[in-house]
Amino acid sequence: MPSRALDEATPIPESRIAHFDHEADVVIAGLGCAGACAAIEAAAAGTDTLIVEQAAGGGGTSANSGGLLYLGGGTPLQKALGFEDDPESMFAYLMAACGPGADEALVGPYCEHSVEHFHWLAGLGLPFKEAFFPDSHEPPGDESLTHSGSEEAWPFCEIARPAPRGHCASVVGPKGPLLMQTLLAAVERARARVQVGVRARALVLGEDGSAIGLVARHRGEDIAIRARRGVVLTAGGFIHNAEMLARYAPALTRCRYKVGTAGDDGSGIRMAAAAGAATLRMDAGDITLPLFPPVSLKEAVLVNRFGQRFVNEDAYMGRTGELALLRQEGQVYAIVDEPGFVRPENAPTEVAATGDTWGELESELGFAPGSLAATMELYNHHARGGSDPVFHKQPRHVRPLERPPFGALDLRAETTWYAAFTLGGLWIDAEGSVQTPTGEPIPGLFAAGRTTSGVAKQGYSSGLSLGDGSFFGRRAGRAAARTRG
Amino acid sequence: MPSRALDEATPIPESRIAHFDHEADVVIAGLGCAGACAAIEAAAAGTDTLIVEQAAGGGGTSANSGGLLYLGGGTPLQKALGFEDDPESMFAYLMAACGPGADEALVGPYCEHSVEHFHWLAGLGLPFKEAFFPDSHEPPGDESLTHSGSEEAWPFCEIARPAPRGHCASVVGPKGPLLMQTLLAAVERARARVQVGVRARALVLGEDGSAIGLVARHRGEDIAIRARRGVVLTAGGFIHNAEMLARYAPALTRCRYKVGTAGDDGSGIRMAAAAGAATLRMDAGDITLPLFPPVSLKEAVLVNRFGQRFVNEDAYMGRTGELALLRQEGQVYAIVDEPGFVRPENAPTEVAATGDTWGELESELGFAPGSLAATMELYNHHARGGSDPVFHKQPRHVRPLERPPFGALDLRAETTWYAAFTLGGLWIDAEGSVQTPTGEPIPGLFAAGRTTSGVAKQGYSSGLSLGDGSFFGRRAGRAAARTRG
Repeated sequence: MPSRALDEATPIPESRIAHFDHEADVVIAGLGCAGACAAIEAAAAGTDTLIVEQAAGGGGTSANSGGLLYLGGGTPLQKALGFEDDPESMFAYLMAACGPGADEALVGPYCEHSVEHFHWLAGLGLPFKEAFFPDSHEPPGDESLTHSGSEEAWPFCEIARPAPRGHCASVVGPKGPLLMQTLLAAVERARARVQVGVRARALVLGEDGSAIGLVARHRGEDIAIRARRGVVLTAGGFIHNAEMLARYAPALTRCRYKVGTAGDDGSGIRMAAAAGAATLRMDAGDITLPLFPPVSLKEAVLVNRFGQRFVNEDAYMGRTGELALLRQEGQVYAIVDEPGFVRPENAPTEVAATGDTWGELESELGFAPGSLAATMELYNHHARGGSDPVFHKQPRHVRPLERPPFGALDLRAETTWYAAFTLGGLWIDAEGSVQTPTGEPIPGLFAAGRTTSGVAKQGYSSGLSLGDGSFFGRRAGRAAARTRG
Repeated sequence: MPSRALDEATPIPESRIAHFDHEADVVIAGLGCAGACAAIEAAAAGTDTLIVEQAAGGGGTSANSGGLLYLGGGTPLQKALGFEDDPESMFAYLMAACGPGADEALVGPYCEHSVEHFHWLAGLGLPFKEAFFPDSHEPPGDESLTHSGSEEAWPFCEIARPAPRGHCASVVGPKGPLLMQTLLAAVERARARVQVGVRARALVLGEDGSAIGLVARHRGEDIAIRARRGVVLTAGGFIHNAEMLARYAPALTRCRYKVGTAGDDGSGIRMAAAAGAATLRMDAGDITLPLFPPVSLKEAVLVNRFGQRFVNEDAYMGRTGELALLRQEGQVYAIVDEPGFVRPENAPTEVAATGDTWGELESELGFAPGSLAATMELYNHHARGGSDPVFHKQPRHVRPLERPPFGALDLRAETTWYAAFTLGGLWIDAEGSVQTPTGEPIPGLFAAGRTTSGVAKQGYSSGLSLGDGSFFGRRAGRAAARTRG
């Protein structure tokens, strides 16, 4: 994936624009999930809406994704499948799981209006099937509901009543394409205009500092686009801008699989920050270990380079990945015994060491004598009684590892493929208004999706990017349509 | 300490300033160590220099500090005391210890010119005594050299040849006051003008976006100050702005001792970011445990809430603190045996639990059965042989803990006094130029000290704030003096 340099994003004063090449009420930069939802709502509000997209067509990273949307609070699908949920439980979970520093101002409305958001998505034609997938990741089949975070795992299960909140379109395989086909069809029905091959690169600011348009690259030339009402930045994150990643989120540079498209080059963040917008938590990212689906990991024992456990292995894969990379230097292994070797899910993982005793295994791994043995003896001691009082893995995943040969699956960042995308970005309020460092909205400027720091300030659960991108994308589109109206 | 709200920092266009109340070639906001050094150099370059300081006098947090300056590469003091050092070793240590993401563009010149910087400070009259303090913290006596980081601790001792680099003025007790007295006297000799009780709050921008002055509060009124050449922001960090701290560095809110003065309210960062400056690593901070001097900790065993060790206890106190808060949720204890109870340094610490066996201790702490026992048995097993092959504590600090009663000293963030200040701030280049998100300098705008993200991007060693504040403060002052010259 190519990485763009930090191209020029300094805002351009209105006085320097000789003429505007295009004009619309609401101008949106980027046509992924957030941009499509912004466009649908802005157009529904009766405004002339123009979306510019740098790629040859709409879809972006959303179309390449698994397609989960984190929704809850008692959606029709949750109810039909017998799961109790309410906005308070959803809020309690997200405030605990999306921190430190999860923003009540975003998480609150996101939970309170999640059922309405479900109905809106269903109303666009997104097909949901009343079928539940019990493993906690994207359903490989056509089920539409699954656990997509650490809801059932310690400590979150003690903080909020667990409920599955990963909702997705009913289709076999990845659900991102159908999600975006549905949203793009709605964009078209709404008569929002789309111009592809146009890359927004800088804001145009009025004399009072408000955003009144964009300058964009089109066929190698700058063009100017006036926004009579508002500008919405939904241009993705910056996982594919190597320079920004090294500068702002150096830990993520170690993840070899960078989840996104070439459009995730940070352009939306740069152009707003250069105009005085505040950025938040630019170091943050979603990080997952190179084991997918991660089912088998739950029965293994994850250890760091000191031979210690560091997480309950049944936590959401984004949590194990985050803790592995950010807290254990990405130096981790999954310890298995004989049955663990034959699980097909583990097949792509290299075996870093094997041994008939813990001593042999720790020696082959270069661990200190007795270190891994002490960990495994403690784990097995409690596992024989069916519990994990140290890290609180749920009893159904606890099994003593005592059938040699033992093995250590290599899950180190430098030798395997950690997957990551960025979570840091612009500070928005609940209406999608982009904020200055003093917490004032920049007039006329809105944003959503991974161009912003959203619901997940650091901790992640699957479906939160499409979830908050679509939710705050809608709000940004509506707010932009109201501006200067 | 009072905390200021996010007061208005939006930049003001030159066209809106009816008249400037004051004027100088170089205008500096904040008279701590960085501002003083900027002023001395700007004035030495022949410019009319004006410093505005919000407090009733100069000094700031620097005057309240321990007064260590991180210098090296073979200073006269290092040589006289028999310590070998060179810029390459200093660079290797800092690049490893100040990350992730330490910036070669800053660390490089900081190391290369450190000896020159020592001579400059000595030339201002800062008294250095050829005496070495062997424990690694601020000398309580009048010694001028000490270890002030993790140079001798694993893994850094394997990365770079260790050398003591904590330099300080020779005076009994804290050295910050003498450092600032010396610098303020030099400011006066240089005939830089100082106005106290004046708080810079926003930049004035010329039509081309360059910084041409400041608006500041003085006796409840806004005044405008023109900078004919450049503006230098040396206004401290933001540890005393509760709203910014919660927004940008939520983990630090848990540190009950916030190291700084009321001036550390983020005003310098806010006014530049509102004008389109990039901020870096705003979540970062220096964090220390509530044990000072931390000597006794080296013989103890630090454990997390799972009863596991997580660091070599002889690491620099800012490293143990950072790992405790950011990686162990601030849920840590120091395990001691009978001799550990009587060390006077431990006196201020509460005893969370005692017991005659590890089982008793872990039970009283609410740890899982066998967890602390497994840790201590492994530690003692190796300690009897004089080594720590798991976490690599230096042998001279390794002693088995086997004389009951055993105790757990409470080092939890919520019940004790972690100390912290912020490390995040403006992105500067090696000349102190403030950068936009695209890596371009904002003309006329410079910064240094904790208003910037400096040498320590996250990992800290004592003396780096006065060190990089004075070093890049000088460069910012010289660069401002050259601007539009």
